[in-house]
Amino acid sequence: MTDDVTGRRSLAEELLRTRFGTDGPELVIGGVKARTLVAAFGSPLFVYDAAIMRDSYRRLARAVDGFCEIHYSIKANPNPAVARLFVHEGAGIEIASVGELQLAQQAGCPPSRILFAGPGKGAEELDTAIAAGIGEIHLESFEELEACARRAAARRCRVDVAIRINPGASVQGGAMRMGGKPAAFGFDEEELSTIVERVLQQEYLTLSGIHLFAGTQILDARVLLAQWAHAISLAGHVTAMTGCPLKTIDFGGGLGVPYHAGEVPLDLGVLRAGLPELRGHVARFPLLATTRLLVEPGRFLTAEGGVYLATVRAQKLSRGTRFIITDGGMHHHLAASGNLGQVVKRDYPLLAATRLGSKNCTPAVVAGPLCTPLDMIGRQTPFPDMVAGDLVAVLQSGAYGLSASPVGFLSHPSPAEVMVDDGHMQLIRPRMDPPTMSAHPG
Amino acid sequence: MTDDVTGRRSLAEELLRTRFGTDGPELVIGGVKARTLVAAFGSPLFVYDAAIMRDSYRRLARAVDGFCEIHYSIKANPNPAVARLFVHEGAGIEIASVGELQLAQQAGCPPSRILFAGPGKGAEELDTAIAAGIGEIHLESFEELEACARRAAARRCRVDVAIRINPGASVQGGAMRMGGKPAAFGFDEEELSTIVERVLQQEYLTLSGIHLFAGTQILDARVLLAQWAHAISLAGHVTAMTGCPLKTIDFGGGLGVPYHAGEVPLDLGVLRAGLPELRGHVARFPLLATTRLLVEPGRFLTAEGGVYLATVRAQKLSRGTRFIITDGGMHHHLAASGNLGQVVKRDYPLLAATRLGSKNCTPAVVAGPLCTPLDMIGRQTPFPDMVAGDLVAVLQSGAYGLSASPVGFLSHPSPAEVMVDDGHMQLIRPRMDPPTMSAHPG
Repeated sequence: MTDDVTGRRSLAEELLRTRFGTDGPELVIGGVKARTLVAAFGSPLFVYDAAIMRDSYRRLARAVDGFCEIHYSIKANPNPAVARLFVHEGAGIEIASVGELQLAQQAGCPPSRILFAGPGKGAEELDTAIAAGIGEIHLESFEELEACARRAAARRCRVDVAIRINPGASVQGGAMRMGGKPAAFGFDEEELSTIVERVLQQEYLTLSGIHLFAGTQILDARVLLAQWAHAISLAGHVTAMTGCPLKTIDFGGGLGVPYHAGEVPLDLGVLRAGLPELRGHVARFPLLATTRLLVEPGRFLTAEGGVYLATVRAQKLSRGTRFIITDGGMHHHLAASGNLGQVVKRDYPLLAATRLGSKNCTPAVVAGPLCTPLDMIGRQTPFPDMVAGDLVAVLQSGAYGLSASPVGFLSHPSPAEVMVDDGHMQLIRPRMDPPTMSAHPG
Repeated sequence: MTDDVTGRRSLAEELLRTRFGTDGPELVIGGVKARTLVAAFGSPLFVYDAAIMRDSYRRLARAVDGFCEIHYSIKANPNPAVARLFVHEGAGIEIASVGELQLAQQAGCPPSRILFAGPGKGAEELDTAIAAGIGEIHLESFEELEACARRAAARRCRVDVAIRINPGASVQGGAMRMGGKPAAFGFDEEELSTIVERVLQQEYLTLSGIHLFAGTQILDARVLLAQWAHAISLAGHVTAMTGCPLKTIDFGGGLGVPYHAGEVPLDLGVLRAGLPELRGHVARFPLLATTRLLVEPGRFLTAEGGVYLATVRAQKLSRGTRFIITDGGMHHHLAASGNLGQVVKRDYPLLAATRLGSKNCTPAVVAGPLCTPLDMIGRQTPFPDMVAGDLVAVLQSGAYGLSASPVGFLSHPSPAEVMVDDGHMQLIRPRMDPPTMSAHPG
């Protein structure tokens, strides 16, 4: 639907044109009609197009080819089938809990290609990770350092650890200032020498890497390049301190995708063009000659391939405002309802998935079935007249969707997740009874 | 802890003094020490004090005694053991999904005392509710009316329905204007006669009641009284239209609890004092002589009895800000993290549950273990020095806690829920593996 106000093509229209297909008025995802998917797997439904996700991966892999490796940040979408797709393409996995470790293993990722970050890792979690022989543990506090050293010593097992760094105030990237703020993540850059010394004192820890705490939803490649350059400088500084090579530099994630009209996608050409300079920067530090460089995107790889489909149950007019009530909402897609940290609640790109190309679109509120005014997934998007049984599609829904949502709220079933790949459909998570009901002893 | 700025006693201190106990520096809930609970059931943990919940119920029941019945709005806390406590005290249950219907049944509530509201009820949900013989279905759209009539006819079963009304602009209550706004809930008051007519046309539907769409988190009893008076007027108006008595008037919920210093608890004395006038108002309508009046609180009954306990994993200083990192956070308690619709993110009442009475409290950020800056449960509350293993308690956590949270986010285990009652502990929901992992076919 065209943006009413500006006449520009909306982001939803742009994505429809470049990423999806149509069959008459109906949305087609990965070669399968939206109604076919809902008929087969129920409504609401999360649909992931493998081809789109693969394409997101390959575009990034081509851009950073010969410079750095990709580790998938599994928190963006923890479905093992999604993770397996990226592992198959060559990705490692970044985890932030033991649950995610198990998912990464289910996805077929070898332990050596798994990294463990996260600000509050428990001693037992560290122990499980050490026992699994994962590639690297990223330390974020002195308590973690000590717990990790104790567990490694108890197992008489040397463990590779990286230091996660919250960059200092001097770091600037394009228009956006990075770092310099207090954070729960990692160690302040200012304490780097102290923490390096503490790691070196531990018999069973090997200082193997540096991990930069990056921002989130970065759409300016120059900001990423500036961060990466800073991480290289820090790593070089550490090798100068220790006189030893580092195995890894982890640039963090933060690669964004557009959610709203006017947001410009990350320009991978600009990113690629900046890499020779970074390569030169690495070359200045002899002890980084064999260091592997890593980037850990999550949202960038998964968001565009995901669509949340919901079915219209009613359309009503209340005091001049049109409400389209669907069976889907914030319990499955908290981010689309604007309640996952968003301050300004702007609509995700929405489509009338069974009435594409309709004229006479007017603004409507798209609300979910929950008994709370928070349950809205559309506020400003123009919609055609909708009737019960029509489908609404929420695009850019492959990241921070189902797993980041309060699925048990109001005790509805949780939706299925389906992977489509060039006309082939695979159920990758079944529809389930309300989670709040399971395993109640009373 | 005393509010640093004003020197007033904080809400947390006030609740500690009136609702909980202490054993040296340690919080005691329902006669059991916080550390004992965590040792027995793991951390993080939701603890519900049956005595506090019972007291909340009884205080309200006494206030409205002889005037209206209480139906527990189970969405506030869907644990059947919590619901059973209120059913045992004499409450009916208000549900908003088939999942909640099953929970209400698990809690021992007879179907005749169950009401079904919610803006997007599916045809199958309506059918299940009709088959279960529940007391009343609340209609919120013409589509629902038709679906309900069809399903009732197919079963040749007369169904009691209530009309949910979104009140008009003229309604004022104390300082707060109620209604008059567009809403996804119910029918606008202006269309009341149309909808009454449409219900009367249905052979298998009986117009049994009126349900007022109320606000939420109302702390001024005069606002409630004004709403209730308006609902009585509407019901009287409907009886005048139909010439038939009504079985029920549902005043809705909306009874609030204080979450922050300076918020004054709902004054049940003021509520009680206003009821004779309302009784007189009812008496003006002869066809309301046998009508049952209902109120459906959720938060009011459950919030104060619930405590979320989390264990400190690290304390760190980042650029002058102290961070207390715990194993609990937004994945279990989205509302306490400020991400459940709150615009201004103010702290829930927090306690250093193993260091009560400490001097030298200074501001700290209390953050969770998730790899996202959203995962904070404290921003402004002064805290003593904390070390790994200490406990943090989030009070007022019995409503919209676990079930309203993205439990699968970052794939940590979900916490257990425990009911304590005068020294006795009962596990009412076990700790569970990450929900995102269960039942994955791939």
